[in-house]
Amino acid sequence: MTHTDILTAAGLTELQLTGGTLSVTTPIDGSEIAQLKMHSVAEAQAQIAAANDAFQAWRSVPAPRRGELVRLLGNELRAQKETLGRLVTLECGKIYQEGLGEVQEMIDICDFAVGLSRQLYGLTIASERPGHSMRETWHPMGVCGVITAFNFPVAPWCWNAALALVCGDPVIWKPSEKTPLTALAVQKICDKVMAEFGEDAPKGLIQTLIGERDLGQTLTASKDVAIVSATGSVPMGRAVAGDVAARLGRSILEPGGNNAMIVAPSADLEMALRAIVFSAVGTAGQRCTTLRRLIVHADVYDQLIPRLKAAYASLPIGDPLDEGALVGPLIDADAMMAMDRALEQAKAEGGTVHGGKQVLTDNHGAAAYVAPAIVEMPEQSAIMHHETFAPILYVVQYDDLDQAVAMQNAVPQGLSSCIFSTDVRETETFLSAVGSDCGIANVNIGPSGAEIGGAFGGEKETGGGRESGSDAWKGYMRRQTNTVNYSRELPLAQGIKFDI
Amino acid sequence: MTHTDILTAAGLTELQLTGGTLSVTTPIDGSEIAQLKMHSVAEAQAQIAAANDAFQAWRSVPAPRRGELVRLLGNELRAQKETLGRLVTLECGKIYQEGLGEVQEMIDICDFAVGLSRQLYGLTIASERPGHSMRETWHPMGVCGVITAFNFPVAPWCWNAALALVCGDPVIWKPSEKTPLTALAVQKICDKVMAEFGEDAPKGLIQTLIGERDLGQTLTASKDVAIVSATGSVPMGRAVAGDVAARLGRSILEPGGNNAMIVAPSADLEMALRAIVFSAVGTAGQRCTTLRRLIVHADVYDQLIPRLKAAYASLPIGDPLDEGALVGPLIDADAMMAMDRALEQAKAEGGTVHGGKQVLTDNHGAAAYVAPAIVEMPEQSAIMHHETFAPILYVVQYDDLDQAVAMQNAVPQGLSSCIFSTDVRETETFLSAVGSDCGIANVNIGPSGAEIGGAFGGEKETGGGRESGSDAWKGYMRRQTNTVNYSRELPLAQGIKFDI
Amino acid sequence: MTHTDILTAAGLTELQLTGGTLSVTTPIDGSEIAQLKMHSVAEAQAQIAAANDAFQAWRSVPAPRRGELVRLLGNELRAQKETLGRLVTLECGKIYQEGLGEVQEMIDICDFAVGLSRQLYGLTIASERPGHSMRETWHPMGVCGVITAFNFPVAPWCWNAALALVCGDPVIWKPSEKTPLTALAVQKICDKVMAEFGEDAPKGLIQTLIGERDLGQTLTASKDVAIVSATGSVPMGRAVAGDVAARLGRSILEPGGNNAMIVAPSADLEMALRAIVFSAVGTAGQRCTTLRRLIVHADVYDQLIPRLKAAYASLPIGDPLDEGALVGPLIDADAMMAMDRALEQAKAEGGTVHGGKQVLTDNHGAAAYVAPAIVEMPEQSAIMHHETFAPILYVVQYDDLDQAVAMQNAVPQGLSSCIFSTDVRETETFLSAVGSDCGIANVNIGPSGAEIGGAFGGEKETGGGRESGSDAWKGYMRRQTNTVNYSRELPLAQGIKFDI
Amino acid sequence: MTHTDILTAAGLTELQLTGGTLSVTTPIDGSEIAQLKMHSVAEAQAQIAAANDAFQAWRSVPAPRRGELVRLLGNELRAQKETLGRLVTLECGKIYQEGLGEVQEMIDICDFAVGLSRQLYGLTIASERPGHSMRETWHPMGVCGVITAFNFPVAPWCWNAALALVCGDPVIWKPSEKTPLTALAVQKICDKVMAEFGEDAPKGLIQTLIGERDLGQTLTASKDVAIVSATGSVPMGRAVAGDVAARLGRSILEPGGNNAMIVAPSADLEMALRAIVFSAVGTAGQRCTTLRRLIVHADVYDQLIPRLKAAYASLPIGDPLDEGALVGPLIDADAMMAMDRALEQAKAEGGTVHGGKQVLTDNHGAAAYVAPAIVEMPEQSAIMHHETFAPILYVVQYDDLDQAVAMQNAVPQGLSSCIFSTDVRETETFLSAVGSDCGIANVNIGPSGAEIGGAFGGEKETGGGRESGSDAWKGYMRRQTNTVNYSRELPLAQGIKFDI
Repeated sequence: MTHTDILTAAGLTELQLTGGTLSVTTPIDGSEIAQLKMHSVAEAQAQIAAANDAFQAWRSVPAPRRGELVRLLGNELRAQKETLGRLVTLECGKIYQEGLGEVQEMIDICDFAVGLSRQLYGLTIASERPGHSMRETWHPMGVCGVITAFNFPVAPWCWNAALALVCGDPVIWKPSEKTPLTALAVQKICDKVMAEFGEDAPKGLIQTLIGERDLGQTLTASKDVAIVSATGSVPMGRAVAGDVAARLGRSILEPGGNNAMIVAPSADLEMALRAIVFSAVGTAGQRCTTLRRLIVHADVYDQLIPRLKAAYASLPIGDPLDEGALVGPLIDADAMMAMDRALEQAKAEGGTVHGGKQVLTDNHGAAAYVAPAIVEMPEQSAIMHHETFAPILYVVQYDDLDQAVAMQNAVPQGLSSCIFSTDVRETETFLSAVGSDCGIANVNIGPSGAEIGGAFGGEKETGGGRESGSDAWKGYMRRQTNTVNYSRELPLAQGIKFDI
Repeated sequence: MTHTDILTAAGLTELQLTGGTLSVTTPIDGSEIAQLKMHSVAEAQAQIAAANDAFQAWRSVPAPRRGELVRLLGNELRAQKETLGRLVTLECGKIYQEGLGEVQEMIDICDFAVGLSRQLYGLTIASERPGHSMRETWHPMGVCGVITAFNFPVAPWCWNAALALVCGDPVIWKPSEKTPLTALAVQKICDKVMAEFGEDAPKGLIQTLIGERDLGQTLTASKDVAIVSATGSVPMGRAVAGDVAARLGRSILEPGGNNAMIVAPSADLEMALRAIVFSAVGTAGQRCTTLRRLIVHADVYDQLIPRLKAAYASLPIGDPLDEGALVGPLIDADAMMAMDRALEQAKAEGGTVHGGKQVLTDNHGAAAYVAPAIVEMPEQSAIMHHETFAPILYVVQYDDLDQAVAMQNAVPQGLSSCIFSTDVRETETFLSAVGSDCGIANVNIGPSGAEIGGAFGGEKETGGGRESGSDAWKGYMRRQTNTVNYSRELPLAQGIKFDI
Repeated sequence: MTHTDILTAAGLTELQLTGGTLSVTTPIDGSEIAQLKMHSVAEAQAQIAAANDAFQAWRSVPAPRRGELVRLLGNELRAQKETLGRLVTLECGKIYQEGLGEVQEMIDICDFAVGLSRQLYGLTIASERPGHSMRETWHPMGVCGVITAFNFPVAPWCWNAALALVCGDPVIWKPSEKTPLTALAVQKICDKVMAEFGEDAPKGLIQTLIGERDLGQTLTASKDVAIVSATGSVPMGRAVAGDVAARLGRSILEPGGNNAMIVAPSADLEMALRAIVFSAVGTAGQRCTTLRRLIVHADVYDQLIPRLKAAYASLPIGDPLDEGALVGPLIDADAMMAMDRALEQAKAEGGTVHGGKQVLTDNHGAAAYVAPAIVEMPEQSAIMHHETFAPILYVVQYDDLDQAVAMQNAVPQGLSSCIFSTDVRETETFLSAVGSDCGIANVNIGPSGAEIGGAFGGEKETGGGRESGSDAWKGYMRRQTNTVNYSRELPLAQGIKFDI
Repeated sequence: MTHTDILTAAGLTELQLTGGTLSVTTPIDGSEIAQLKMHSVAEAQAQIAAANDAFQAWRSVPAPRRGELVRLLGNELRAQKETLGRLVTLECGKIYQEGLGEVQEMIDICDFAVGLSRQLYGLTIASERPGHSMRETWHPMGVCGVITAFNFPVAPWCWNAALALVCGDPVIWKPSEKTPLTALAVQKICDKVMAEFGEDAPKGLIQTLIGERDLGQTLTASKDVAIVSATGSVPMGRAVAGDVAARLGRSILEPGGNNAMIVAPSADLEMALRAIVFSAVGTAGQRCTTLRRLIVHADVYDQLIPRLKAAYASLPIGDPLDEGALVGPLIDADAMMAMDRALEQAKAEGGTVHGGKQVLTDNHGAAAYVAPAIVEMPEQSAIMHHETFAPILYVVQYDDLDQAVAMQNAVPQGLSSCIFSTDVRETETFLSAVGSDCGIANVNIGPSGAEIGGAFGGEKETGGGRESGSDAWKGYMRRQTNTVNYSRELPLAQGIKFDI
């Protein structure tokens, strides 16, 4: 399929794709695929107002009925899985298999949210007073702004939106200015689904803002956006956190990771090898859960690293729409330059770099294809404390597990982590209070590729937000503690006497 | 008992109470009862360092064993209930019954936390991949700073500390500079209990910082204070939220309320009357859950308000250590001036003020005793949107429930609320998604006096934090999502294919 | 549509519907619609063996994948909703709207189960020993036998099957010998869905046994049927309970109810009236949740009962396939005779019977159409303690709520109950520990028509089982408590010393 | 201390210990220590009646207040820990350390239950209908009969009673006729605690029945005993299950286990050795969680078994009150004869018996001291499928894990199990759906000595009951599903139309 075919299949060519000021390029060859009109701040304010109107109606629609909308959304995503997956690849450059995987995550979270729509469990609680009943109920919270990044152009929106919608909250989406087309395609799907659902879905329930940072700031600054969920860099996370804190609002933050794998002597090295490669080079190293630091026991270092280098050397790099490619391009030239700078710093700190050069410069236009890099480091130096959004894998050695865990935890980020070991004493230690300090800690699995059933996120500079499974849905609702006195007495809690 | 007797009974006269630069006065008569040495910022930093050392040990002590420390704390609080309750009264001026009630809350949360210490439940979760197990575990988070306000000098510390300790987190307490003596008394109790508990309780586990705002700021700014829990005013809440957000840390905020009661035509007016008086004048109107706005149906207004005025007129005001007193002093003259200003503004906005004057000026030194005020307002005007920490009760009329709920929700704060009605259609509506927007919503109970079994807190400018019961303990732990692959295959989530 | 058309639409005419020894008649006109071959006990044993083989495979299929089978089942039920709903009406005689409602319940529980398939939450638990982790996991249990009754020929199977399948358990269905055709139609749907799902669905996963009581007894007696879920009469419940207890197996029992409504003075009588009629005459009084006892406050008795009699008098009785009919036939002549006997006894105990006679005798063959009966009783006498599966509504008066609740609770059954009252003190009392002793207690809703999100069942002779929502899924799994020692020490629980 | 001193310390000599028809002997030397009067069936009926009266009051006492009673009970047990522990040893013969451990379990469950008393969480649930709220509440259930066995004379009562009391249920205890004195001592403690608690504890709240099987049958047969919790043999379990099922009552069954340990090649054999000895000979092999089957990998068999035999040979056997003893007597001569018979059968099935003879025949009167037996078996033969309440450890070899797990699961019982392995693939497999089929499955811990935080019990002939932690408390309450319609409409679930 041509790039235009992909746009057409996703229904985008029915929209106005030219004449706007936002130039959208595909990282596949750097060519421009659209010029979109951007929303103004006034339009953003209007969307916020419309969403709040929608909230007044949507919060009263019974949750299982709200779930029905999400069920229809999941069905439509199933129907358009290939179409949307391909568009993801076109716009952000990840390989098609990963594009499909991202849509599958959308589908999975829809299924999950449908089930939730008959739960949204609060508690009934034993009261200390006779003739009193106590309970905790979860109510719709308000408008949910969702700010997403280019590397996962659609799934994080859906993690948020599927839950928010079931929880009774309208959604306004501000996608990355680098990936607005996938957002428009998803908005089209939503519009179709809302039409099918009928009038219970109020106007303004699901909206999208196309443009730059000022639109995101409009969301974070507005008292009328009850929840801001934001995925992106640490500086972005700090900015959102600050803006929202200043108005005592609620944010759900997912600002980056710096994820490590510990390879223990007992590890199945063949499994570890495959996990490393997928985690480190998938999405060309631009996942927030990308494996960036490899901490290998000295006893197996010389078995593992040469095989790893060999695997890297044979990785098929190329057009991510080609089924054969396993590594696609970086998002743009800036990303490539950041990678270069990181590799230079790594060398300066004593690292030995393998790979990392630009490739495919002949026939891919202005695209930024690079060979993934392995960097053998003498120790965990300064550069390793930073997240560079590129396929750079730093490798260091360790001698005992405590040391390896300490290295794992020494960075400011806290998203994902893993250990390859078959020794249960090691694996459970890694998962314990004295083990990994990340929000995600896996055993014999790489750090990326979480299932939607678990909560996703982490502490420290990873911002503390949780999305997706477990009780992440509580982030989209307000909790209310109720005590009902159905007696004819008025006893006070804590046995206080106060007789007027 | 003399004031000195109270200090002696609490063991405080063993400490150095003179010569310091922090003057502590009792609101009972305005006299100085101590001059305390304040901690320096450097000492605060040292406490933070000691607490982090303690964390390394405490997080590995099994939670049920940590619970045993809290059980002993609860026992000691039981033993010293009267002593500490009286000291609360001396230092913050609430009546002795409320002082006792506050200690009882400490005891209750200890009992609750002991039970939690064998729970701290995470989840095991169904995984989508064969040979994989998934779970979510809650781990100790780190040092917990607790900033408290004068009006509840001890209970909020204990809500936080009992949970934090069971959750594996050391605690540093920054009490209000107006109520440091109660904090010192509680610290003494903790020291005794830790000694009894033995060496499993590391040095630095429970500490207290005496001083002013700079110490609180040291806590909020430090990356080494994982959690900051703060109770106080909305400006304080904003400041803490901002400081902590800037470092992507975690805060638990309880910054104020502006609590209303709706009295419906079907209400039991006798019960309502008693609830109003306790909620509005208890702690001299200085509870965060104090009833500040009374929204009365037009049909019962003339039955209720005259009786309310009569009840106010007969309230015994006086020394809070006297069993007969139901209303004690305000914390200080500033509070009285703020009350005056609010009453002036209320008048300017059309209100009719009943009461509100200073009383007992002859024989109580510099103390600020006031007659609680009822202010009949023509509508919910500007002053009613503000929280004035004083016994001012604004009264407005309503005609239908939707209007009453809209008034209730129109203020920026969102802590507590209640309805007096016997009509289940009204009461359930009030508790529903379209009802009160507060974190606490009661039926036929006033807005104050929560049981510890429920979560305490609210949204909007109330800051979103939750303390005490339900799953508020999660605020003191970090969540970790684990997937363990115990197979010999490496399937990817979402069915992604990636074969190297 | 003719009766044959209905069978054909459901795909049944592709099966062998003649020549067997099980005569199936439609209660609509008493005519025979099929002669089915019955399974032998040996065939039942073979199904059990096949199901256990299936269990070995199915328990290892990841739960979210098992959920996908149930999702497809829900989709197919949506597609065949009208077809199956009509067949339900044909075979058991309930009106078409109720037939549709029953299929909708199947669909709803499928949605719910799909969500569950990524949950099936166990717990991680704080351990008292250092270096130990504790958790509770839920595992597939084994083969689930499902015995259902004629009055809900398909929904209860699906409540059980949707959960059991997601929980990893194969299902063998023994429908009532009066309604085997709906079971065959559902089995056909399952076969289609399993084919679509592919080879992960093992042979023997979903099976149906056509025949009489001996087949049910084969299920209850077999150690290889891990769970027996049975809906039916109290004697049936006792028999199943005894058989399964004798082998220390697990049963989930739903044996009948004797459901009451209390109408308080404050009730909205118009709403109550409609709720009474639907609850009492729906499914011709043959629901386990049918309203059988009406306990009316003396003050409103004379307002309510005449209107109720008038409503009864105007009820359209007739062919349940006709959209106009609200009351269809009883299942058979035996049911009508049981109704007659009950009415006779009621009269002997002082009751005044309104209605209750056979109608439509001319043009409906051997069918048993009756006019629903209202029986005004002087007190709650012996007959009112029995469940007669027919549209008989006993009416008694009460004077105060305690007395009404005592009457409500005085019968041996404990399934469903409700109060119509607008007084929150009454309604909350009814829902409290001293209120209704039923598993279901509603306010301003009739006793029938539960949503699938709540657990369904009750105590006393209602047998204690729970199906459908909440954590009823635990009934289909085995709980395992795990403690993992990952330390190099071996401390004993409870601090026991035992040094060899 | 003399035996009389122990009785005196426990306050028993204040009771009438002579002249009754129930002869109580101590297994320490076989001497009679009391002749107790037995209760008649009529007295049992009277206790049931009194308990039901108590229920009417106790269910209305707020749960946190009920928790206070249990807190006081825990405190009193702490105070009498040594006294009661010694009495346990005197009456049932387990060593003093285990006697203390048993009392500690009582204390632990009290702490846990106190915490629960402010939880007893039900759910609030999203309703599908507008203007409806749905919730699930747990209410007190009724009288709880607790039937216990001689081997744990006090802890299982407390597991049940602490939960039942907090849940609002009165308790009637029928201890083993072999260990009535410990029950009387605990009843005395309860009487003291209830007196301290005050009048909120109704007469008849906690009662004890001294006597034989007829009293237990009175409890199981009575419709007025809502819950029967029974610990004992499988035949006892069947009998209780049958009696209670016949009246559709609720039983919580703990009828025995046949527990195995798998020792894998990677196991820490030193740890395994110690775990085996404690699990197999503790309480002289008379725990329901006693290790009875040791399944050892062929590769480590010759390393482990000789060391195990050596350890057995050096075990100090003797008076369990002596601190030095690790193995005390069997309960009586019947137990010794059963052990002899089992060993004979084992030999006949090819086993080689080490130890197992009676010892200490000279100076311990009629007591039944035996040397614990190791029996090396060629395969898992018939005798290994039976639970013999004696210190017999059967040992078999295995070659691969699947085979070991199959052996582990091949017996009819399903209580406890464990694996010693350091390989996480083995340990997680053992804990998975295809692993152990027991209710308890441990890694690197023996099968006995559960913490109270987890649920205790198992499936198959172990009867399916759960006691102690997790949500075992639900076994003592009745679940109620509530839907409240607070609208002025009457929509039906599943969208059914029914317009009269």
